[in-house]
Amino acid sequence: MSEKKRRRTEAGPPAASAALKKSQRSGSHAQGLRKQLKPDAEILASVREMYDAAQSAASSSKALTLSDLSLSAACREVSDRDVASVQLAIERAVLAMARSILAGRGFSFDVPSRAASNQLYVPELDRIVLRDKSSSRPFASLSTVRKATITARVLSLVYAVLRRDIHVTKRDLFYTDVKLFQDQSQSDAVLDDVSCMLGCTRSSLNVVASEKGVVVGRLVFTDDGDRIDCTKMGIGGKAIPPNIDRVGNLESDALFILLVEKDAAFMRLAEDRFYNRFPCIIVTAKGQPDVATRLFLRRMKTELKLPVLALVDSDPYGLKILSVYMCGSKNMSYDSSNLTTPDIKWLGVRPSDLDKYRVPEQCRLPMTEQDVKAGKDLLEEDFVKRNGGWVKELDMMVKTRQKAEIQALSSFGFQYLTEVYLPLKLQQRDWL
Amino acid sequence: MSEKKRRRTEAGPPAASAALKKSQRSGSHAQGLRKQLKPDAEILASVREMYDAAQSAASSSKALTLSDLSLSAACREVSDRDVASVQLAIERAVLAMARSILAGRGFSFDVPSRAASNQLYVPELDRIVLRDKSSSRPFASLSTVRKATITARVLSLVYAVLRRDIHVTKRDLFYTDVKLFQDQSQSDAVLDDVSCMLGCTRSSLNVVASEKGVVVGRLVFTDDGDRIDCTKMGIGGKAIPPNIDRVGNLESDALFILLVEKDAAFMRLAEDRFYNRFPCIIVTAKGQPDVATRLFLRRMKTELKLPVLALVDSDPYGLKILSVYMCGSKNMSYDSSNLTTPDIKWLGVRPSDLDKYRVPEQCRLPMTEQDVKAGKDLLEEDFVKRNGGWVKELDMMVKTRQKAEIQALSSFGFQYLTEVYLPLKLQQRDWL
Repeated sequence: MSEKKRRRTEAGPPAASAALKKSQRSGSHAQGLRKQLKPDAEILASVREMYDAAQSAASSSKALTLSDLSLSAACREVSDRDVASVQLAIERAVLAMARSILAGRGFSFDVPSRAASNQLYVPELDRIVLRDKSSSRPFASLSTVRKATITARVLSLVYAVLRRDIHVTKRDLFYTDVKLFQDQSQSDAVLDDVSCMLGCTRSSLNVVASEKGVVVGRLVFTDDGDRIDCTKMGIGGKAIPPNIDRVGNLESDALFILLVEKDAAFMRLAEDRFYNRFPCIIVTAKGQPDVATRLFLRRMKTELKLPVLALVDSDPYGLKILSVYMCGSKNMSYDSSNLTTPDIKWLGVRPSDLDKYRVPEQCRLPMTEQDVKAGKDLLEEDFVKRNGGWVKELDMMVKTRQKAEIQALSSFGFQYLTEVYLPLKLQQRDWL
Repeated sequence: MSEKKRRRTEAGPPAASAALKKSQRSGSHAQGLRKQLKPDAEILASVREMYDAAQSAASSSKALTLSDLSLSAACREVSDRDVASVQLAIERAVLAMARSILAGRGFSFDVPSRAASNQLYVPELDRIVLRDKSSSRPFASLSTVRKATITARVLSLVYAVLRRDIHVTKRDLFYTDVKLFQDQSQSDAVLDDVSCMLGCTRSSLNVVASEKGVVVGRLVFTDDGDRIDCTKMGIGGKAIPPNIDRVGNLESDALFILLVEKDAAFMRLAEDRFYNRFPCIIVTAKGQPDVATRLFLRRMKTELKLPVLALVDSDPYGLKILSVYMCGSKNMSYDSSNLTTPDIKWLGVRPSDLDKYRVPEQCRLPMTEQDVKAGKDLLEEDFVKRNGGWVKELDMMVKTRQKAEIQALSSFGFQYLTEVYLPLKLQQRDWL
């Protein structure tokens, strides 16, 4: 065997040898950042400061509402209401209909408009709200008779659900009268109308969305009376209940909530029991946030007064997901006060992290034209504009035309996320 | 006010009146079926018979394996193996490579073929298995050098994961070397190759899929050491853990497992605590079954020896989902023995149920051409053909060209599913 051949052999097969060198290289870089890490006690002290600030902010300043801004006359909002009061509201509506019919005037619903032209972003509240425009939906008009009939039917169905105090899905509702509704989008739309009309949230109508989210970490709560300890939910975590009104008695010794965009990162954090090292509650909706997860997050934030840190992909989509948690979706702006969680901090992965943490070029992905457009659109959004730090990051993203997923951090080792990246972020209070 | 007007008024607005009449009509029909219901004790006796049969079948007859059929030489299968033995297998493979290189022969992987031409449906086992054809993947060949390099890299990555005894996702694996893998489909495919080569399941490589499934009901198990009591998981249920090897100590006093296609039906069953009335374990993958849920179902079925009843939509898609649970997907046929759950009974909603339970015409949907084609294709599948009852039902579906979702039962009231339909099905032992 020639000397050259032998040397090559000793180093192992070429692929394995390249892999080895590579892992040594990234290993040494990771080692460098790892050395910057202070003892956990010091990191925790920095986290506790953030926690204290959130606690005192929550107790000293009452959250602003529409009435504080003297906007309650010009804007419309719904609130959570108990079963009895929603039933009463429906009874009143039906009685008013009956009286109107008896007076020979037929009947008509006064339905708040949910169109874009009736929506308003209120910077003081940092969310979208609904103005007070509404339109009449008379039964005795060819153009509205169908919608008026559907409205009456949905009112009667919701009333039946409330009387039994059970929960149903939008799909269940649709199936009770396919002939009338024809298409689920019609019953869904009227359901939102009914929420607005009665001034209560959709959850108060006991119509729920299906659940996608999971939670794990330092949280104890009751789900329909069952006591759930989220430190004892293994790696799979606890599925977030679809019906928030059956959730109660939240207790926690966490210092913060870690909101994670993706399932894979959630699994890493759960398996490494990250919450034992840094007391926190870890929650994910596995992508686009569903209503149940948004309600659950808001509930945790308001009751436990915990700061919320977000870990999302470094792309426009990650920020869009943050915006839905923070400002709500346009479709449900009438319920923005109950669905949104203000003041979420963007922990990572941020465009500036890519260089700071030396994410290898091959783990970054080029942005498509569509991505770049989405990024530029976000730069026009009020909720981005009011945060200088976010504008800078987003500018950098659009200019470098590079994006990266949370998983890109795996290139330094599978546990780099939990062992180096997140602890360092917390230590350096590196959130925006 | 005229007499006519008054009469109309007394009956309420027309929409509400129509709704009332309708609910009375379907109410009386539901009432009729409800009257057929015997006391729960009698229904339970019928369920217990099924339970006993499943228990004795499981203990008397060992499940058939490839070697029982003298097929183990001609076919290839993988099995669950512990961390140490998979590590050893990788070390052996690498040593063999080294020896081959030292002998001046370079190195090459012997990779089992996972192509359709190498797959076989074994009726005795009722699942798809892989034949024993394999191909050589030499490093010193232009056409295979890339794949051989990727294979070596994946072996080294999996080895690193096993050494730390952590779990990672396929996406994590891809991100460790984007430059080499280029595209996740490439690292995914080689990962399956590596499973086959080492003769172990993908779970044994500690590479997991993300979880979608939830479970609730009469089951206690440990998830990574935490004891989970699924009767105390509220309405949200427990998320099924992604890593089946951390699941253990299954205990249950259930008489059967109820496998549900959809989230909405799961929620109804969980909220009504159906498992308290009829002791069962309720599980759903929320649509197309993921690997974690399939592994979990199989685990429950084999360890607890419980019969499995399936509640799916009455359309070809519902049956397709059943087939994935029972026979596996073609893509992972090398692992069919660990992923499949034989002998699942089709409880409902079946095409014959639509008339039997008088599901209103407007709640049935016309099948599209594509649906009809999918139905006809299913009629050609071995796993359908061997069950006469299924053939009949599927024939009826294709002929009537009607389909219906589980939610269609909501037209008789939101709790019709849990209070009438399912109890009656159990009482009449109406499964195929």
